[in-house]
Amino acid sequence: MHPQRLRRLQSALAQARLDGAVAIAGPNLYYLTGLSFHLSERPTVGFFPTHGDPVLVAGNLEQSKVVELAPYPMRGFYYTDTAGPAAAFREAAQALGLGKARLGVETRRMRVMELRLIEDAFLSPRIDAAEPIFAALRMAKDEAELDLMRQAVHIAERALLATLPTIRVGQTERQISAELVVQTLRAGSDPDLPFAPIVASGPHSAQPHAFVTDRAIQAGDILTLDWGAAIGGYQADLTRTYAVGEVSDTLKTIYRLVQEANAAAQAATRPGITAAEVDAAARQVITRGGYGEQFMHRLGHGLGLEGHEDPSMHGLNELSLEPGMTFTVEPGIYVAGLGGVRIEDDVVVTASGVESLSSLPRDLQVIGV
Amino acid sequence: MHPQRLRRLQSALAQARLDGAVAIAGPNLYYLTGLSFHLSERPTVGFFPTHGDPVLVAGNLEQSKVVELAPYPMRGFYYTDTAGPAAAFREAAQALGLGKARLGVETRRMRVMELRLIEDAFLSPRIDAAEPIFAALRMAKDEAELDLMRQAVHIAERALLATLPTIRVGQTERQISAELVVQTLRAGSDPDLPFAPIVASGPHSAQPHAFVTDRAIQAGDILTLDWGAAIGGYQADLTRTYAVGEVSDTLKTIYRLVQEANAAAQAATRPGITAAEVDAAARQVITRGGYGEQFMHRLGHGLGLEGHEDPSMHGLNELSLEPGMTFTVEPGIYVAGLGGVRIEDDVVVTASGVESLSSLPRDLQVIGV
Repeated sequence: MHPQRLRRLQSALAQARLDGAVAIAGPNLYYLTGLSFHLSERPTVGFFPTHGDPVLVAGNLEQSKVVELAPYPMRGFYYTDTAGPAAAFREAAQALGLGKARLGVETRRMRVMELRLIEDAFLSPRIDAAEPIFAALRMAKDEAELDLMRQAVHIAERALLATLPTIRVGQTERQISAELVVQTLRAGSDPDLPFAPIVASGPHSAQPHAFVTDRAIQAGDILTLDWGAAIGGYQADLTRTYAVGEVSDTLKTIYRLVQEANAAAQAATRPGITAAEVDAAARQVITRGGYGEQFMHRLGHGLGLEGHEDPSMHGLNELSLEPGMTFTVEPGIYVAGLGGVRIEDDVVVTASGVESLSSLPRDLQVIGV
Repeated sequence: MHPQRLRRLQSALAQARLDGAVAIAGPNLYYLTGLSFHLSERPTVGFFPTHGDPVLVAGNLEQSKVVELAPYPMRGFYYTDTAGPAAAFREAAQALGLGKARLGVETRRMRVMELRLIEDAFLSPRIDAAEPIFAALRMAKDEAELDLMRQAVHIAERALLATLPTIRVGQTERQISAELVVQTLRAGSDPDLPFAPIVASGPHSAQPHAFVTDRAIQAGDILTLDWGAAIGGYQADLTRTYAVGEVSDTLKTIYRLVQEANAAAQAATRPGITAAEVDAAARQVITRGGYGEQFMHRLGHGLGLEGHEDPSMHGLNELSLEPGMTFTVEPGIYVAGLGGVRIEDDVVVTASGVESLSSLPRDLQVIGV
């Protein structure tokens, strides 16, 4: 348990006139308690009342983990596979004394399964979205968190630098992706990588969320690598795009626009500017270059314990940036049939501007030949 | 789209008197359509009406994937990050003509976010759990699926055999886990591993769901490795336990009991026997050995596109096994302070009995010295 984080949460809950917040296995529960659980068909749920001590419901296999939390243990209610979780949820609700309460839940994480158990145990509570509260709690990172993020970015960068010299025309996207994973683990990432690397070559790179295929890379391809690393649960998420040999002038123009858009967004970032304004700084460069329609996603997303967290860096988010907030800057241009370019950095808002945690070169480099 | 699987689903929906089923990004949507999506804060939802053609709601980044489905495309409704998904959900509901319908959803996967969008778009439909329907659809694997599972198990086994000779006293759990991941990818696994390997040494192995730590392994430790691999989305999930040098007689006794329990469960498996009876065959061995209380989890779980799927092999599951069903056999004994032993195989029910997809030795081997 992190007592300070719990107190900040409880103060936010009181302000929001909620009786408590609920966090299932995952980053919010980890942030508050230091406890890691797998998200599985066995629900693991932490209840954080606005007043009083938190309570955990978990499968009996998890009991020893919670005991290790001392001197800040959570009162736990455990269930067996055969008994199922319903009774443990009801006992937890009674212990909390929160029947018919107003509860904040993670609507983007909590599943219908946990929702039904909570509705039953708390006698049809009023359910609100707790995302804004958890997001506000976690958005600005403390120094210990930033230190882990710097380490994660450093690992991801070393992994790419070890992978690039191995890339050759004729290798498949899948082979390159496997090598990048190997190098990320060798560089010291948590074994649970944030996501499988995207390696998208030639026309495939026109899909922002491409899956790797067995396509072999060819001279003239544009090649996009989007990969991550993690340390202590904190993530890096980077993208670089390369020329496999000589690429067309159109691709070079697109690349230059994306590079300038990335730089413009970083130059605009400082405390007090809104997420929308940072998005606009990048989008303006690409729109003026004639590819506004082909930059069809937001500029970036918050990054930390989750790969996608707040602040969402899109054109309608009027949130004012504050020091310690961390997010990706990842403008891209995607032309169907031709290919795509994306350049993604991880940045933190500082007292006076921005610091890019990532420092890999951003100019167009030729590889593979 | 797999037209045959869709027809089987629609027939099951009609029998259950449901108007349709809903599958979010993940294995059921993949099983029915062949389409892979990341589960993210952008909902991707497939609607499968009992009568008529299915419909997809997804972010605009996913549009090109669906087009590639031809000649079996799904009608798609796409949304931008700035517009948000609510309107696309309402348009999909109108296209399906299913206002106030009775819908089956994945209660263990669908999040409150998607539930609220569906409740809004379908005008407070009646929501039922569709798990039994999806599970029945997917439980018995066809030959193409079994072929992928055999490949996945083979990859996982080769990875372990390449890792074992590298393990030495003094290495940390984290180092061993990284090497096992590297070897799993080298052996040809999908880059998105089913889960990060569990490497639990000495007293840590008494936690069935241990996370890797920086503990260095020592002579006298028992060492449990639980790891997976995947090909084409189909998973392997294996566990082996080793002696690091000489271990205590108690650990040897525990090991022998677990080994016998694994063999007893496999010997009992055949069409017509219930999941509970297979669990009991293993549990009886361990209970008679005096460690019944220390085998505090079910015998195993179904395996396929998901790491944990049906059939759940626990003492209350009266499901009769049928040829083609695939599951793990993973008895274990966990003694706090001392350590734990688990031996996990992946098996398929055959016409006459059982076939273990995994064939790594199950007797106690000494490693690391």
